[in-house]
Amino acid sequence: MSSNVNAPTQFLEINGDRYAYRRFGKRGGMPLLFLQHFTGTLDNWDPAVTDPLASERDVILFDNAGVGRSSGSVPGSVAGMAMHALAFLDGLGIETCDVLGYSLGGMVAQEMALDRPSIFRRMILAATAPRGGEDIMHLEKASLAKHFGNSELKGYAILQKIFFAPTASSQAAGEAFVGRLNQRKEDRDAVPGPEVAGAQMAAFREWARVNGERFASLKDVRQPTLVFNGVHDEMIPVRNSYWLSENLPNAALLTFPDSGHGSIFQFSQAFTRQATAFLAADGPFAPY
Amino acid sequence: MSSNVNAPTQFLEINGDRYAYRRFGKRGGMPLLFLQHFTGTLDNWDPAVTDPLASERDVILFDNAGVGRSSGSVPGSVAGMAMHALAFLDGLGIETCDVLGYSLGGMVAQEMALDRPSIFRRMILAATAPRGGEDIMHLEKASLAKHFGNSELKGYAILQKIFFAPTASSQAAGEAFVGRLNQRKEDRDAVPGPEVAGAQMAAFREWARVNGERFASLKDVRQPTLVFNGVHDEMIPVRNSYWLSENLPNAALLTFPDSGHGSIFQFSQAFTRQATAFLAADGPFAPY
Repeated sequence: MSSNVNAPTQFLEINGDRYAYRRFGKRGGMPLLFLQHFTGTLDNWDPAVTDPLASERDVILFDNAGVGRSSGSVPGSVAGMAMHALAFLDGLGIETCDVLGYSLGGMVAQEMALDRPSIFRRMILAATAPRGGEDIMHLEKASLAKHFGNSELKGYAILQKIFFAPTASSQAAGEAFVGRLNQRKEDRDAVPGPEVAGAQMAAFREWARVNGERFASLKDVRQPTLVFNGVHDEMIPVRNSYWLSENLPNAALLTFPDSGHGSIFQFSQAFTRQATAFLAADGPFAPY
Repeated sequence: MSSNVNAPTQFLEINGDRYAYRRFGKRGGMPLLFLQHFTGTLDNWDPAVTDPLASERDVILFDNAGVGRSSGSVPGSVAGMAMHALAFLDGLGIETCDVLGYSLGGMVAQEMALDRPSIFRRMILAATAPRGGEDIMHLEKASLAKHFGNSELKGYAILQKIFFAPTASSQAAGEAFVGRLNQRKEDRDAVPGPEVAGAQMAAFREWARVNGERFASLKDVRQPTLVFNGVHDEMIPVRNSYWLSENLPNAALLTFPDSGHGSIFQFSQAFTRQATAFLAADGPFAPY
């Protein structure tokens, strides 16, 4: 079975840029592009999320410029990341696809849909925020800084703390998530360094600025959209998902309890079931 | 096929009270109790919502005390209504069931779950609010008063305005909803008068009061719960659904776009599909 545990990393050269990606699953239908979170690489995609979707779909995971084994440097704006993602899809010859944009990736997806509306058929925006959103990725606040300042937490152990809620059930799910990420042993991306984090953080700060009437640009994103989050997300609080669903003209919202930024991983079975049902609906409306 | 278009009204006498109800669908499994909205009777249940659920389940529609053809007078509190609903289920010999509480009915369902936790297995709370919620049923505010003050609107035509969003698509869905309610020609309930509305409005005002720590009692409602609403609900704004899903320990939230208080009727197909999937999940967690 196709899986992000062992799918080979591929490389696409276009306009002097090299993009790392993995493509697996069932070919022939509408591809599903995955856009990744802050400092995340191809290896940060939980196989419990990618693989059930790949069982019915053509799944494409993508390292944006300067991340993992993609060349170049990380743009300091979401708009710059959107340009790279569009160039990558152009290079693959994909005119229209579905998208699962997670956290930073959800912002990139929104920008792509505004820049080129034909690029997406249906969108899933998970644990993300609209332009002009609030309390986006403030790692310096107490609830998050305590984990970054804890020298006993290394690598994925920090993700378990910051992506999951501080309950026994959510932390257990976080431990299982880390175990799944560690299943891939070979052909792994390099872990991004501080220069990646810095540029992506600059992009978050730019994205949080209100340009003109707040949330007005969302009216131009007409794709059927599923907005998703955990209600206890400390990194991009759930009210940002509320704003997305209230201001996008064609969006359903789904939230799950006892979970935070990593709700899609904690409830991977329910999330992929809902995502599959949403993507399988081919009508003009988001409700599915 | 069983349908609220023609299911016979039945009567249960218990403790000197007489309750009107309709019970139809597939018997043998967990019954699904429907609890109704402000001034709504058995005839206000849209067959597009009841009938798909009845195709797999034992559906019970219920007129609370003083409503439709149930005897007595309407209690001036949600707690009073919950006592009648529990007495009714006791009379039917039902110890545990599922519930779909809509608007006022969603408040009654919450109160029942607090008063007797064993009464519900899974709960669907649609277009409703927690105790201490905000802007609950203020019919005097401009966005609603303009419809009540419009003498050209009679009967269900007012529901089309206040249950649906002011878009062409939502109003068209509202017209279809009214058409479906009018399909039932015989054995109809009397339309409730101002004394019903007055007592129910007193119950809303009492429910909006904060007792102690706001939303704290929701922690004691442990049932897997699906909270549902349209994002443009003017009667019980969607932020009340956000509070429910953030404070109930085990609740998923689903919202739909381009719709208001009557979102379950506007998107009856998607809503009943989601409700069916949620009720079919028999695990301890709300995500489905």
